[in-house]
Amino acid sequence: MTQTPSETDLTAKPRIALLGLGAMGAAFARTWLAAGYPLTVWNRTPSRAEPLAAEGADVAATAAEAVASARLVVTCLLDDASVGEALAGADLTGRDLVDVTTGTPAQARARSEWAAGRGARFLSGGIMAIPPMVGVPEAGGYVFYSGPSEVFEEHRAALAVPAGTVYAGRDAGLASLQDVALLSAMNGMFAGVAHAFALVRNEEVPLGEFAGHLSAWLVAMASEGVRLTARQLESGDYTTGVVSNLAMQVEGNATLLRTAEEQGVSTELLTPYADLMARRLADGHGDEDGAGVVDLLAAPRR
Amino acid sequence: MTQTPSETDLTAKPRIALLGLGAMGAAFARTWLAAGYPLTVWNRTPSRAEPLAAEGADVAATAAEAVASARLVVTCLLDDASVGEALAGADLTGRDLVDVTTGTPAQARARSEWAAGRGARFLSGGIMAIPPMVGVPEAGGYVFYSGPSEVFEEHRAALAVPAGTVYAGRDAGLASLQDVALLSAMNGMFAGVAHAFALVRNEEVPLGEFAGHLSAWLVAMASEGVRLTARQLESGDYTTGVVSNLAMQVEGNATLLRTAEEQGVSTELLTPYADLMARRLADGHGDEDGAGVVDLLAAPRR
Ligand SMILES: NC(=O)c1ccc[n+]([C@@H]2O[C@H](COP(=O)([O-])OP(=O)(O)OC[C@H]3O[C@@H](n4cnc5c(N)ncnc54)[C@H](OP(=O)(O)O)[C@@H]3O)[C@@H](O)[C@H]2O)c1
Ligand SMILES: NC(=O)c1ccc[n+]([C@@H]2O[C@H](COP(=O)([O-])OP(=O)(O)OC[C@H]3O[C@@H](n4cnc5c(N)ncnc54)[C@H](OP(=O)(O)O)[C@@H]3O)[C@@H](O)[C@H]2O)c1
Repeated sequence: MTQTPSETDLTAKPRIALLGLGAMGAAFARTWLAAGYPLTVWNRTPSRAEPLAAEGADVAATAAEAVASARLVVTCLLDDASVGEALAGADLTGRDLVDVTTGTPAQARARSEWAAGRGARFLSGGIMAIPPMVGVPEAGGYVFYSGPSEVFEEHRAALAVPAGTVYAGRDAGLASLQDVALLSAMNGMFAGVAHAFALVRNEEVPLGEFAGHLSAWLVAMASEGVRLTARQLESGDYTTGVVSNLAMQVEGNATLLRTAEEQGVSTELLTPYADLMARRLADGHGDEDGAGVVDLLAAPRR
Repeated sequence: MTQTPSETDLTAKPRIALLGLGAMGAAFARTWLAAGYPLTVWNRTPSRAEPLAAEGADVAATAAEAVASARLVVTCLLDDASVGEALAGADLTGRDLVDVTTGTPAQARARSEWAAGRGARFLSGGIMAIPPMVGVPEAGGYVFYSGPSEVFEEHRAALAVPAGTVYAGRDAGLASLQDVALLSAMNGMFAGVAHAFALVRNEEVPLGEFAGHLSAWLVAMASEGVRLTARQLESGDYTTGVVSNLAMQVEGNATLLRTAEEQGVSTELLTPYADLMARRLADGHGDEDGAGVVDLLAAPRR
């Protein structure tokens, strides 16, 4: 893979090497190609690279060859272990490795050390988007990046092509931490959504209309509830601004559990949070909203 | 409580009797007073009625007296048991009882029978709003109503004052069912939100900014994900339109659980949904999204 003359031109876009062409990697690749970035791609299963070759990507035969072709190397693989496997035989000297694979904060910190030991600078990324949001700025998707700010600044323009960018701090683990926190909250929401559909699916409820009500309700409650919790955790005062007191909510939980039983739906997705709320109420906090449950999961370190 | 002459005027607004002046009942009361409805209020703890008396409500000394004062009787109490207790001594003959207390579908159906046995028509309501959304049309709050449509139509104008109205069907249980389904989904979301805050609260993450990212993420995912699930459940085809395959999500769950352990946060709110996703994957559905989990909670009746 020799550089074309235009790539030595300082105004030209720098080459990017992308490892991983799953649903997400392929979506990233298409936005860089569309924006005119020279792109080298590699995927473990070579057939997945074919459509991208037709769209102008250079296909590398090995991960090492892809890494050799560009200063900026982006990995978008299944998990941290697959990043280690894919890069095992590559020379990372002088490379800037940006890993947007979902992983834990500790994995990101360890991968950062590992990259430093091989002569590479490292950014960890956490993608807050699903593939249809990639390359669609109005969809609001973005990626958290953490690691040295100078590396982030140097590649910011290229990184901003597939999705927005949010710099999360120098500690390599901070992008993963916020990524995982948002994904955990989303899983909680989807657990609730699965339960909601299970309750109504066999009743005289038109599912499309119900879905409209359900998503509008979650949207309204996400905005109200999340900000209140943040304010309360920051101030340490959990009783100011409460509009749905815990005592009433625990009473409501009994109704939710009973309805599940009436409908023959397992309560397994409801009980853990209901139990924590009941514990907090039993501790004498009936005049709070939900913020006190956070204390039961992780005590404040002050 | 004698009727004033203007109340016999057909164009005048009919009197409403409201039982229950908690956070929600008081919010409802204020909107009816502001809209010019003659209003009789009663609350078990009389002191809670005082501010409303100052705003123009007539205060009844007993629930029975309140019921005697108006054709339309609205109950907004803690739970179904408290509705039974409050109305025990009241003569409901010729009354239209609208109960917006949160309850189960079976409780609503039983309360409907109970009301019929006492000579009253009955609507069950499920409130999709928190008190600050009441009387604020642009906040989008509403109440599901179920029961005879002619009763709903007759009182629709009065019922539309505190919040929007959605008629859910003749079966009295259908308002509660959809109410509880939406509340269950919300609790799932708030469980996830509590977990998310627990992960980051003791780290170098500014909570206010994090809350902004978190609520925006939930908003984006609620719209995308909920509609996809409804479409898939309706068609029975769970693999068309998948953008986040279950195999990748289960891999992601391992990262979420591991991060919780790294951060010293209990995994109790994450495991039940992760376990169901893993079970669905083990059953050979790695190419689906989340809709298959609904089958594990409640098999489709076709
Ligand atoms: N899709 C989403 O909604 C979404 C959203 C946010 C973040 N993410 C994250 O983005 C990353 C990629 O997700 P995706 O949706 O693209 O997943 P995917 O469609 O399942 O693709 C997985 C990719 O990883 C590769 N891979 C797996 N094991 C490997 C190994 N041992 N060595 C080398 N390559 C390996 C696969 O190669 P083969 O083709 O050879 O199998 C494929 O390119 C994940 O970390 C995911 O958590 C995804
Ligand atoms: N607040 C919300 O965010 C919200 C949202 C949607 C739906 N709701 C539903 O609205 C209803 C009322 O909620 P809220 O927020 O107003 O609750 P709240 O502020 O806790 O008020 C509870 C009301 O119920 C009365 N009550 C309790 N037990 C009673 C009994 N045995 N006999 C007679 N009255 C009794 C209380 O009277 P005392 O003053 O004498 O205690 C008070 O008026 C509940 O079903 C709730 O699920 C509330």
